Amino acid sequence: MNLQFRQVALIGRYPLAPQPGGNPGAASLRARPALGGIAALLQAQGCAVVVEAQTALAADGLDGLPTLALEDIASRCDLALVVGGDGTMLGAGRVLFHPDTGEGLPLIGINSGRLGFITDISLESYASVLPPMLHGEYEAEGRALMQARVIRPGPDGDRCVFDALAMNDVVVHRGNSSGMVELHVEVDGRFVANHRADGLILATPTGSTAYSLSAGGPILHPAIAGWVLAPIAPHSLSNRPVVLPSDSEVSLQIVSEREAMVNFDMQTLTALQQGDLILVRRSARTARFLHPRGWSYFDTLRKKLHWNET
Amino acid sequence: MNLQFRQVALIGRYPLAPQPGGNPGAASLRARPALGGIAALLQAQGCAVVVEAQTALAADGLDGLPTLALEDIASRCDLALVVGGDGTMLGAGRVLFHPDTGEGLPLIGINSGRLGFITDISLESYASVLPPMLHGEYEAEGRALMQARVIRPGPDGDRCVFDALAMNDVVVHRGNSSGMVELHVEVDGRFVANHRADGLILATPTGSTAYSLSAGGPILHPAIAGWVLAPIAPHSLSNRPVVLPSDSEVSLQIVSEREAMVNFDMQTLTALQQGDLILVRRSARTARFLHPRGWSYFDTLRKKLHWNET
Amino acid sequence: MNLQFRQVALIGRYPLAPQPGGNPGAASLRARPALGGIAALLQAQGCAVVVEAQTALAADGLDGLPTLALEDIASRCDLALVVGGDGTMLGAGRVLFHPDTGEGLPLIGINSGRLGFITDISLESYASVLPPMLHGEYEAEGRALMQARVIRPGPDGDRCVFDALAMNDVVVHRGNSSGMVELHVEVDGRFVANHRADGLILATPTGSTAYSLSAGGPILHPAIAGWVLAPIAPHSLSNRPVVLPSDSEVSLQIVSEREAMVNFDMQTLTALQQGDLILVRRSARTARFLHPRGWSYFDTLRKKLHWNET
Amino acid sequence: MNLQFRQVALIGRYPLAPQPGGNPGAASLRARPALGGIAALLQAQGCAVVVEAQTALAADGLDGLPTLALEDIASRCDLALVVGGDGTMLGAGRVLFHPDTGEGLPLIGINSGRLGFITDISLESYASVLPPMLHGEYEAEGRALMQARVIRPGPDGDRCVFDALAMNDVVVHRGNSSGMVELHVEVDGRFVANHRADGLILATPTGSTAYSLSAGGPILHPAIAGWVLAPIAPHSLSNRPVVLPSDSEVSLQIVSEREAMVNFDMQTLTALQQGDLILVRRSARTARFLHPRGWSYFDTLRKKLHWNET
Repeated sequence: MNLQFRQVALIGRYPLAPQPGGNPGAASLRARPALGGIAALLQAQGCAVVVEAQTALAADGLDGLPTLALEDIASRCDLALVVGGDGTMLGAGRVLFHPDTGEGLPLIGINSGRLGFITDISLESYASVLPPMLHGEYEAEGRALMQARVIRPGPDGDRCVFDALAMNDVVVHRGNSSGMVELHVEVDGRFVANHRADGLILATPTGSTAYSLSAGGPILHPAIAGWVLAPIAPHSLSNRPVVLPSDSEVSLQIVSEREAMVNFDMQTLTALQQGDLILVRRSARTARFLHPRGWSYFDTLRKKLHWNET
Repeated sequence: MNLQFRQVALIGRYPLAPQPGGNPGAASLRARPALGGIAALLQAQGCAVVVEAQTALAADGLDGLPTLALEDIASRCDLALVVGGDGTMLGAGRVLFHPDTGEGLPLIGINSGRLGFITDISLESYASVLPPMLHGEYEAEGRALMQARVIRPGPDGDRCVFDALAMNDVVVHRGNSSGMVELHVEVDGRFVANHRADGLILATPTGSTAYSLSAGGPILHPAIAGWVLAPIAPHSLSNRPVVLPSDSEVSLQIVSEREAMVNFDMQTLTALQQGDLILVRRSARTARFLHPRGWSYFDTLRKKLHWNET
Repeated sequence: MNLQFRQVALIGRYPLAPQPGGNPGAASLRARPALGGIAALLQAQGCAVVVEAQTALAADGLDGLPTLALEDIASRCDLALVVGGDGTMLGAGRVLFHPDTGEGLPLIGINSGRLGFITDISLESYASVLPPMLHGEYEAEGRALMQARVIRPGPDGDRCVFDALAMNDVVVHRGNSSGMVELHVEVDGRFVANHRADGLILATPTGSTAYSLSAGGPILHPAIAGWVLAPIAPHSLSNRPVVLPSDSEVSLQIVSEREAMVNFDMQTLTALQQGDLILVRRSARTARFLHPRGWSYFDTLRKKLHWNET
Repeated sequence: MNLQFRQVALIGRYPLAPQPGGNPGAASLRARPALGGIAALLQAQGCAVVVEAQTALAADGLDGLPTLALEDIASRCDLALVVGGDGTMLGAGRVLFHPDTGEGLPLIGINSGRLGFITDISLESYASVLPPMLHGEYEAEGRALMQARVIRPGPDGDRCVFDALAMNDVVVHRGNSSGMVELHVEVDGRFVANHRADGLILATPTGSTAYSLSAGGPILHPAIAGWVLAPIAPHSLSNRPVVLPSDSEVSLQIVSEREAMVNFDMQTLTALQQGDLILVRRSARTARFLHPRGWSYFDTLRKKLHWNET
């Protein structure tokens, strides 16, 4: 089969967006020496390689390769190789869309440390795994993104004080406030409940294996057109995780008087006020991940969650 | 608006299929006197009323109305009123399909006792709620069903020893065997895991608020095209509920040597053997529930789960 | 039987200590008119009544009664009637100890709103319930308290920056920091684990039905000589609640670099730093609650948790 | 230090009592060749060695050593070495009491396969670990046992149809019955609740890391004087695990009409009937486990539950 990707970007910067519990330094240190090797392999396969500009500054062995700013990659390349952890991959998946068509740039994730949920190729195996993928032997998979906004009512009408994409989750949390946050939840204008808890997580299938899982949420297969709404330490014991259709609009309004905070994939906005409204819709954009032929979501799940290890 | 349903069946028999924890006698006793009143109201609205044959035997005040066997109702009627609990409604939803087209007969559920998840009209309110519904003022909703089979390997090849529809769930369980059942789980031929537990529940969105919820599963909105796979008392603490796409085939194979049992909506098959395979697909059939205009799934959820009660 | 309590204090101020989700205004408003009636009943039974000084300022119908500062009550009275919610009762239970002997003043809790876990006499029933109790017809029950300190290492040695009693729980939490807090946990100098989570709750039996229950902890019968250590949204799914002997010293040390916060029964200390050590021991003091003869802990549990409601 | 144990029994038979998920054959096969080596080491330390009679039949290299029936060991020996899994150790701990004094024989557990919760010495390490223990360098630990009975009401009065000790748990379960079992729970004659669920587990601290943990129960440190009462897939979401004082009598009565089953550490009694009463008290007997000096319960917990693995 012929080479499918001619213009390939190499990204190894961390954080593209911060990630809880991540250890950027260590990851970068492990990734650095590998970047040169990956670039050489891509070139040997016939690809033209560009390096994301900040990655080029941090890495070794990439001298002489052309660089591109992160925001220019999606319009100039037809594939990106992302080297790092799941946090790096999330950051890339959230920004690498063609500026005109909005189409997601195909992404391949190489984990520079431990196996990730979405960076499923190891530094040890990429040399044998990448070549067939570059020639079309891959499984493509779309991952839904959330478009989330914070709307603040004011004397001169509502205004949007925050607007961002999220690949993992939108989290409203009490933060430093003692006591619980109370949220009025609606779906497509229909009242769901007033939830009192440490916070609420609204997670994509991609995010269902992250914070939401710790809070008691289920795992959502990436093909599920839904979000999980998972409460964190809810006051009512019957307040259980609910899976909502992702083609609905979910609204979370701050009812309680104390300040709260919101995170969109760890992009934090503090000092949420009573009356603030968090609105979440499915983004028109979809991230595109490429996996080696024969890849199975369940294999990753089983390894990450140590099933069948007894 | 004109009358939309001319030929209406009245069903109040319990169990159409048995349901755990149901109290058929009490429900029937409460439903009996109401059936005559409902029939009179339907006639006053201009509907021709037929009574399900076994219902006619048990009820009072239905003398003189024509009767129909349960299996003939879907081909002769254009609506059924189901009076009872969720179990009665599940039983009706599993069988009332047009024999030629396979289309689900529209069903309206009237609870004869407590509010149910799917019988959302009370005996106290039906007199005011039904007339506008009969004239087209309703919200229609489809509920997915499972087609499930048990395949037993034998010296002369595999044979199907059980085949049924389920609206709530398919449950494989250790039953009287001490120790755990071990199940080899695959989705579309891809290995998921060998799960060791008391059992596994595969539930529809409708079933997600029943046994699966007790076992720790999430609530699935009825519009979600997925099943929840929830383990019961799993040996591995990381063995958490997973939401799988309902357009896939899920297979559960008995690995352990001890006998197990399987329930399809409480239709029980005991003495499952090592090697037996339970295969679950989405049925081509969809049950059709009608609700009063303005009905919201979340209102039912909130009431049944006692959210916002304090 | 003779009158057992001659000098009785009346306390209805809220908060004595703040409580999450409490609604002090509403509680006080309901309690105010009742305080006069309770005082009259106590006098009619032969008790001398004193009113806690701040309570006297807020309440009606207590004119002419002597007042006492909260800190003087335990040495001058032999019983306190606490009118309010569980938060008021916790506040009283944490401070009303005889300054010389350390003995807990007997406390009777009257809930001014909904039934509480530890305020189990209603405004509607106190008139019939209190008289026999005053004459010795009661069940006495001791509740364990925690003595908790925050130790901060410094160039000039460690120093204690916080020291308080807790009746419900000690909570270390990430607060406004994104990501998880990491805590090094030891029991009597033995390493337990490095826990990564939103936070850790160490709760008494009294606190086991509060925040810890929301986080997934078990209910501890008040007679259990143990604390529950419950993680909030733990990173590891096998990081489950553990019940530890309350005669051990539990130490929680901040390992992560980000700031954290700690609450002792909602008394908050923010800006915990890496290396800070939270040490928890059982206090030598025990709060003493009196209940009506025939009272059962399980009755309260059943009512508060809505068991056997359907 | 002098030799502390002169008469040592060697036990490697499995099952002494059956255990769910155990793999007796494999364990025995691994244990067999080790038994001869352990016997030789004991003799070299100066101990007189006797072999449990059934163990002698199954093992190799024990020829010439005297044998004793299991029931005679506690009165003739002052230590037993148990080689196998946790199931073997539970079986030994349940029976090895001095017939006159009721005192538990000191037990040392050597796991012949994977590390167990209560068999904490590996085949690889016993040669260096055992000698100091035999000379008094050990940590002794007592484990509480349950005395459990099944009482059946009859026309001629109640009679006891089952009476046994349990080290792990007493489990009442619906077994093959469809639907839930309903149990009327009392503690010291005080009503707790009517619980509807797949079943109820009453577990000792030792059993808290077994089936109860899978059902959502907490871990109880062995020094806690309590049992955990954990429901399996309870109908009510607020029906959470409760830790009860072990000096109380817990009674579970079958309310539902369908048959149920009960297990005492996997000793099974099926066909429980409506009205049957399961009564559980703390046994006067306590099992005695010896661990190497420096042993910590938390080390075992951390290893078994894979804490701090990532």
